[in-house]
Amino acid sequence: MLNVQLLLTGNELMSGDIVDTNSVFIAREFKNLGIELTRKVTVGDNMQLLTEQMEQLSVDADILIINGGLGPTVDDMTAQALSETTKNALTLHPTALEQVKAWCVKRSYRLTGPNLKQALLPSGCEIVNNPIGSAPGFSITHNNCQIICTPGVPVELKAMLRDEILPNIAKQLPEELQTVTQKLKVFGIGESGLQKMVNETYPDWPEEIELGFRATMPLLEVKLTSRSHTSSILRDECYSNIKGLLGQHIVSENGNSIAATVVELLNQQGKTITTAESCTGGMIAAQLTGIAGSSNVFEAGFVTYSNRMKTKLVNVNQQTLEQFGAVSEQVVKEMAEGSLAVSDADYVVSVSGIAGPDGGTDDKPVGTVCIAWGDINQVYTKTLYFPSHRIHFQNYIANTGLDLIRRLILGHADQPRYFVERQLKPNA
Amino acid sequence: MLNVQLLLTGNELMSGDIVDTNSVFIAREFKNLGIELTRKVTVGDNMQLLTEQMEQLSVDADILIINGGLGPTVDDMTAQALSETTKNALTLHPTALEQVKAWCVKRSYRLTGPNLKQALLPSGCEIVNNPIGSAPGFSITHNNCQIICTPGVPVELKAMLRDEILPNIAKQLPEELQTVTQKLKVFGIGESGLQKMVNETYPDWPEEIELGFRATMPLLEVKLTSRSHTSSILRDECYSNIKGLLGQHIVSENGNSIAATVVELLNQQGKTITTAESCTGGMIAAQLTGIAGSSNVFEAGFVTYSNRMKTKLVNVNQQTLEQFGAVSEQVVKEMAEGSLAVSDADYVVSVSGIAGPDGGTDDKPVGTVCIAWGDINQVYTKTLYFPSHRIHFQNYIANTGLDLIRRLILGHADQPRYFVERQLKPNA
Repeated sequence: MLNVQLLLTGNELMSGDIVDTNSVFIAREFKNLGIELTRKVTVGDNMQLLTEQMEQLSVDADILIINGGLGPTVDDMTAQALSETTKNALTLHPTALEQVKAWCVKRSYRLTGPNLKQALLPSGCEIVNNPIGSAPGFSITHNNCQIICTPGVPVELKAMLRDEILPNIAKQLPEELQTVTQKLKVFGIGESGLQKMVNETYPDWPEEIELGFRATMPLLEVKLTSRSHTSSILRDECYSNIKGLLGQHIVSENGNSIAATVVELLNQQGKTITTAESCTGGMIAAQLTGIAGSSNVFEAGFVTYSNRMKTKLVNVNQQTLEQFGAVSEQVVKEMAEGSLAVSDADYVVSVSGIAGPDGGTDDKPVGTVCIAWGDINQVYTKTLYFPSHRIHFQNYIANTGLDLIRRLILGHADQPRYFVERQLKPNA
Repeated sequence: MLNVQLLLTGNELMSGDIVDTNSVFIAREFKNLGIELTRKVTVGDNMQLLTEQMEQLSVDADILIINGGLGPTVDDMTAQALSETTKNALTLHPTALEQVKAWCVKRSYRLTGPNLKQALLPSGCEIVNNPIGSAPGFSITHNNCQIICTPGVPVELKAMLRDEILPNIAKQLPEELQTVTQKLKVFGIGESGLQKMVNETYPDWPEEIELGFRATMPLLEVKLTSRSHTSSILRDECYSNIKGLLGQHIVSENGNSIAATVVELLNQQGKTITTAESCTGGMIAAQLTGIAGSSNVFEAGFVTYSNRMKTKLVNVNQQTLEQFGAVSEQVVKEMAEGSLAVSDADYVVSVSGIAGPDGGTDDKPVGTVCIAWGDINQVYTKTLYFPSHRIHFQNYIANTGLDLIRRLILGHADQPRYFVERQLKPNA
């Protein structure tokens, strides 16, 4: 197995001013090749620390990815540190110079000293093309380790890694190390619940197919990873088994969110949706309209936070409010019916709940929510209980509402697990 | 200056499954003490790598913070690795055992082997209290370096660091190294713009007062950091100078978002607000209702995505739509007036724009937005231009709308800089 290590550089990474997402991206991309990073080291823009780490890590690793420090300013010292480490003098690299020049011409910038510096590289290095930015990447072998220097700007790193570096490394890999990954997005099943289902239903789950999870709140990404030489029959069987277990909890196989899936389904059917929101306060509408193309399927949404506005905007009966309270299935049903009538939409989701931290009672504690969803023929209702921080509560409930619409459009008959797991237990 | 280094452990950090925010928190907290981390190393749950790094980093550092690997499972190997590194045998630590027992009792859990393991620590170590979780922290001196082991669970780490570790380290610091930090949240001025203003207005800005920035999109956090022995007169003068430069662009001095500031101002005045949103699709309402206490100040919001609903819900004149188009100051003015009338609110903000990626024209390219804000006496309008990714556009515009309300409530007369910087240049 290849030993791949990572050296990140930048004062902003050491001061807590930015969160390092580059190394997450690099780790994931290598994981897709079947390679787990061995170590990652982060240091500020400090020549001594940089050269020390380059030497140390290159002794240990087969491949060392260096990220950051390729820019035009004096803080950017990767090339110089690598020159000192490898004892290869800095020289103007003709290909790099061409690229920097071309980049300047394209933007009508004058080629200045700082940009020229970006073409000043350790002699003997090879250029790694940067399809986006001005800083070329470069690679050199030292201590029998391939050192590859990449830009710190995330879009540049991503393009360079995907287009140039990984395909090259993949070619070097023995075929039996290459992997295939299959992914599903799921709502309403947690990691431990799913693992338990797998253990129970498939106690002999094959070792060759690695089952992995990544929480992308409130969704779960489920990944099956296998070596490319693994039998595709086995792979397909496992994928199909997992799909069978997850069933109607599968939101998408293309990475889409619930909102994106709903917008896509509505677009396919030429149908529209409306929303009437109390406790989510506009978040369901915002998630839908966050998707490009939502204007075809979404005309209007109502945020009816007060009782008065539930009556005035979406015609909730005053007496229903008094008799059952704002957080009741009766009220969300009337909110749904009212907003359908006012907006002429085909589908509707409405919610009313207690996001907290205040407003809970013994009967309806903080975290109680009533949801209605349906169309002009029928509106369904449900009461759920999701005690959590206000923002998580709102996000979870917004996604639950959209998930119920997804299930309705697809004609899913099974009850989602959260109907049982999230039910409000009556006071004994 | 103390040399503080960081060793993070966990397979999930190496596989790209999670983003490391712990080290960002640690770095920031140390920065507040005036200490910049020298190096951070991350490795998976691998005994050999762990012991190797503990040895190496402890030779180099004065303080080594180890994060992660304190849990009850076999993956959690920090104590054992530290035992091997320091040659101090693992023994049941009586204080740790008490804490683990108490934690189990409190939760009616049976004390099991895995929990017992959390009290099995290198002999001679000192316990660091964990106010939240079951895993005690511990510290030991090795290679003349104070090694402090902390839990990977973020809330536990934060509590332990703030309550136990940092106060202890602060005590060890010579007083002249301790720092004071003053912070402001700002909207509508960027880092480079502000730095330029400071350079021009205060060319002799004192070295003792460090001016720093942190982007918290779309707001900017401005920080003044100085040693605690710095003259408080100088410190106050600099803070006051920065406040003078930032002027009405200051959103809060307590870390509040614009939405939180608006909800607070409205609560103080006993006033309410309504929203009529097209291109932001509910995000302004969602940001307001994301704040606890918003139900006092927010009764209703309208998401009027289609022209038909602009007319039907908030009484925009059909003819105004035909004559000026949905993205026009005339239409947002009527949206504002209509939603004020329907909701009886005191203040209103309304927006209509082209979020993209489609829908732009030569006159109104993607990124064009019209905003109206005001009260029953007067509604103001403005057209701005913010070409960006759909989600950034929506978030920026939602915050701009709320910022204009903030300025109106506070009676700010100055024009925000974004009126000039974000104006739509007419086609020549």
